[in-house]
Amino acid sequence: MNGLWLENNQLHLRTDLPTPEPSSGEALVKVLQAGICNTDLELIRGYYPYQGVIGHEFVGVVEQGPSHLINKRVVGEINAACGHCHFCRQGVPTHCENRTVLGIMNRNGAFADYLTLPVENLHQVPDNVSTDVATFTEPLAAALEIQQQISVDSHQRVLVVGDGKLGQLVSQTLALTGCDLLVIGRHQEKLTHLAKRGIKIGLVDAVRDRSFDIAVECTGNPEGFEIARRSLRSRGILVLKSTYAGKLTLDVSSLVVDEITVIGSRCGPFSPALELLAQRKVDVQPLIQGRYPLADGLKAFEHAQKKGVLKILLSVTDSVLSD
Amino acid sequence: MNGLWLENNQLHLRTDLPTPEPSSGEALVKVLQAGICNTDLELIRGYYPYQGVIGHEFVGVVEQGPSHLINKRVVGEINAACGHCHFCRQGVPTHCENRTVLGIMNRNGAFADYLTLPVENLHQVPDNVSTDVATFTEPLAAALEIQQQISVDSHQRVLVVGDGKLGQLVSQTLALTGCDLLVIGRHQEKLTHLAKRGIKIGLVDAVRDRSFDIAVECTGNPEGFEIARRSLRSRGILVLKSTYAGKLTLDVSSLVVDEITVIGSRCGPFSPALELLAQRKVDVQPLIQGRYPLADGLKAFEHAQKKGVLKILLSVTDSVLSD
Repeated sequence: MNGLWLENNQLHLRTDLPTPEPSSGEALVKVLQAGICNTDLELIRGYYPYQGVIGHEFVGVVEQGPSHLINKRVVGEINAACGHCHFCRQGVPTHCENRTVLGIMNRNGAFADYLTLPVENLHQVPDNVSTDVATFTEPLAAALEIQQQISVDSHQRVLVVGDGKLGQLVSQTLALTGCDLLVIGRHQEKLTHLAKRGIKIGLVDAVRDRSFDIAVECTGNPEGFEIARRSLRSRGILVLKSTYAGKLTLDVSSLVVDEITVIGSRCGPFSPALELLAQRKVDVQPLIQGRYPLADGLKAFEHAQKKGVLKILLSVTDSVLSD
Repeated sequence: MNGLWLENNQLHLRTDLPTPEPSSGEALVKVLQAGICNTDLELIRGYYPYQGVIGHEFVGVVEQGPSHLINKRVVGEINAACGHCHFCRQGVPTHCENRTVLGIMNRNGAFADYLTLPVENLHQVPDNVSTDVATFTEPLAAALEIQQQISVDSHQRVLVVGDGKLGQLVSQTLALTGCDLLVIGRHQEKLTHLAKRGIKIGLVDAVRDRSFDIAVECTGNPEGFEIARRSLRSRGILVLKSTYAGKLTLDVSSLVVDEITVIGSRCGPFSPALELLAQRKVDVQPLIQGRYPLADGLKAFEHAQKKGVLKILLSVTDSVLSD
């Protein structure tokens, strides 16, 4: 089969990959469409030493697996868990100590004709959710993880730093809480998507220091972190949604004096994400800025790496092009 | 009056200071004894640009104030709050946006014959608590702040990094929760104080990576931070109890991937601290390693700055020497 293969920080289009064989408890999924995420770009930059097919945001059709899923469209949680470690026993498979992670760690990913995942990781896509929209389930779930970790309510002033792919989804999910939300970025046209949904927006200098209860950092760059940190009043919460290619240098004393909480936030719950998409409470269509067949995957990555570009999709199986 | 005055990172013994005059709502306190804290040492190193009398851990006797406190021994909360800002209205005076802080920010401190504080900051010392012991109320309250911020129970594996002044108090308070506690440090004789109380101790290399639920960093140095970070399993909590003279460089991505919570922790509640001291549930006597009259304050600081030294006391009023 075909797939985008990462090796030594170089991405290659390979046509000689064996179609994966599902292990016991796994399904074989024919990939319809996949989305390029910042983590994919970070992997190419060497954020984590991964070798294999990359890609973890996808919609596919089950070809081998339990009968109720055969020929159904599915999305999939990316952490494949062992089922018996400390975290699995506590019902937290996303932190399984022996996990493999689709397209990120020891498991070939979604930028290929086929992938395999444990059946329990798969969620059927509701009929009224298009394949385009469903491709955003994984990043939308990651955005919802914030609300699994901290409570956000209408009394709180919340800042989202970053108007990129993740910032867009985080902002829309936080807006649903009724909190007093401001989203800042550097790109007026990207902020406009949010303004159209009634979300308060501003350019980077719109932030007053020490005035927010919660700040969500969605840029993955040190300036974004700094803005988020400065925006917080005492006892504020800084949510880190982005990975960073390098290390960050911080004034840790100020975290102590102001009793700031910094909380890392990663993968989130798929069911509520699919529900929000089915109810059309989150609008992902404006985020799609390019669409390439898998055979043009390297071009797709060139496009995705350009500054200011939102979501680039890889259409893997032809049928999806008419979606 | 006499006092230890900090100016341009230089400490001076001054004998020409005016005795402070209490403002409305404040009491005049004659200082009996005061303790040198790491924050005092950091202030001299330039952690925060303060000019004035330093010192914030003290026991004194009220000379002017409400009649029920006159001639009583008191300890005092160090943050003097405005009473009307966002945090004061929420009942969090320790984060008052307009606060002054005894011996740290815009308020002369305790290494002097007299100090003033708002009456509401003062707590009478129970008769069965000696002045030596009561001098530890402020740092003990700071140790207890951890349990105001996070819940600690017997199911959790907790690591304290650091066997210094703060680490000793943090360890003793955490041990009272029944948690599975390990304290690590570099000084066998300091760790022995804790081992005598039945607390599990180890040298720095005793820590297995990714095995603790909570790690409390009490060293204020980057190595301590690194050990605390590495000790945490996913979703662990890293409590920062120490201020750092410089900035720290960290792998922020790993905080995201492991969904670690980092929480700064500063001043804590005085009443439960006094109660623990009155009930003798925390033993502070072994921490006292030196005692100097105020006139020898500079020598006291020289002693306190030596590596591995625990608490150095300044005896300000003679009577306390026979305590």
